[in-house]
Amino acid sequence: MSETPVGAALLIIGNEILSGRTRDVNLAHVAKTLNEVGVRLLEARVIPDIEAEIIAAVNALRARYDYVITTGGIGPTHDDITAECIAKAVGQRLIRNPEALRRLEAHYAEAGLPLTEARLRMANTPEHAELISNPISSAPGFRVENVYVLAGVPQIMQAMLDDVKGRLRGGLPMLSCSVLCNLGEGVLAAGLGAIQRDHPDVEIGSYPRFAGPDGFRLSLVLRATDPARLDVATEAVAALVRELGGVPRRQAGGEEPEDT
Amino acid sequence: MSETPVGAALLIIGNEILSGRTRDVNLAHVAKTLNEVGVRLLEARVIPDIEAEIIAAVNALRARYDYVITTGGIGPTHDDITAECIAKAVGQRLIRNPEALRRLEAHYAEAGLPLTEARLRMANTPEHAELISNPISSAPGFRVENVYVLAGVPQIMQAMLDDVKGRLRGGLPMLSCSVLCNLGEGVLAAGLGAIQRDHPDVEIGSYPRFAGPDGFRLSLVLRATDPARLDVATEAVAALVRELGGVPRRQAGGEEPEDT
Repeated sequence: MSETPVGAALLIIGNEILSGRTRDVNLAHVAKTLNEVGVRLLEARVIPDIEAEIIAAVNALRARYDYVITTGGIGPTHDDITAECIAKAVGQRLIRNPEALRRLEAHYAEAGLPLTEARLRMANTPEHAELISNPISSAPGFRVENVYVLAGVPQIMQAMLDDVKGRLRGGLPMLSCSVLCNLGEGVLAAGLGAIQRDHPDVEIGSYPRFAGPDGFRLSLVLRATDPARLDVATEAVAALVRELGGVPRRQAGGEEPEDT
Repeated sequence: MSETPVGAALLIIGNEILSGRTRDVNLAHVAKTLNEVGVRLLEARVIPDIEAEIIAAVNALRARYDYVITTGGIGPTHDDITAECIAKAVGQRLIRNPEALRRLEAHYAEAGLPLTEARLRMANTPEHAELISNPISSAPGFRVENVYVLAGVPQIMQAMLDDVKGRLRGGLPMLSCSVLCNLGEGVLAAGLGAIQRDHPDVEIGSYPRFAGPDGFRLSLVLRATDPARLDVATEAVAALVRELGGVPRRQAGGEEPEDT
């Protein structure tokens, strides 16, 4: 890549992901949303609801990346310990945030539900935190330093991320194109490697898929920040496929998500 | 927990996961399969196809956990660099593994396809690696020290994991039960926290879900290695739900995967 990308890490906090009970769907959404504002997701970690693990991971990641996004662990139950852990990680006191409290009071009054002590915990943030709006269930996320603390429930996480993304300072968004074909990777590999060497500013990935309506399918995915360079490399890949007897199908964007 | 669990980490290698193009489905499968043989997934990381990143992550994880499983990066194309990185991480030479070569030769001869130089790369392993069978496309995975290197394509990864799981020495499998209800977390939290304190050998998680056919639903998931202790704690949670005016629905296993 010709530019140093603005990079982020995602920290997924929750035993339910590691046990296999719940399938994470936040990573792909975070990756794409960050890319819209020119921030690249460079690493993700999934860790359990254990204080020492959370603190260590937050500190390792926030030192290394421009931004850290966390998901999970900000509800009212005993296993929701993210806010206290983040406060410890950044060396700030955990306080009952007055603005967060105001939002919870308004929400529960309107809903006619009791603002229990457990629910009040959701107003706790590190001392110098800035709130992140939660238009769905009111209990806010927060930013402290370069760490953005979001809910784990996808609908709420997505709404919070919409609030966050305008605050991030990114570089150029990564653009992408795909060339689909049904040639084997082993046939294309040498030519593809040569195209990659000739286009160091374009990232080329090769992803076979053995199921689906078409049976075998190979997706060659190209990513770059410069649209002209991306186009040149994509045409080179399409030409390689044709030269080897395949029928290339070019797809702009190429980012339709798929479970492979 | 009363026993120190046998723990594993999963290292997911691939730009396509971090870009959001491909949604990982391997984590949940690995978690459940490991649990069948009494090994608990304690951490997962997703990293790009970059040599220094792979080496650093493998070395951090293999020092810390009993087992490390990697997925991705063992195909024939230029972006498949896992085997060389693992060799460097464990300080072994990368060799053309004779048995792996024999399997590839047999497979491609039978398929009537050329065994190109790119395909031959899939026979490369660290010097002291032990192969992992690939009944689908022949190119094997391998184990070296406590690191198990598997394909990223889910069908192949699953077949390889079936070969691997009999070789792992685990502890007691984690058992689980769920109690479903439609009470709010904030109403249950105090009682649930008390039950958690009374049952330190049972892990209790609370997972709200805002969509689906039933609208709001709360899953209280209990996990323990001792079935009697699990049962006692599950009954305590069900009693709490009833006491607070809810209708608890107990579910054995409680591990049906869901996208929340």
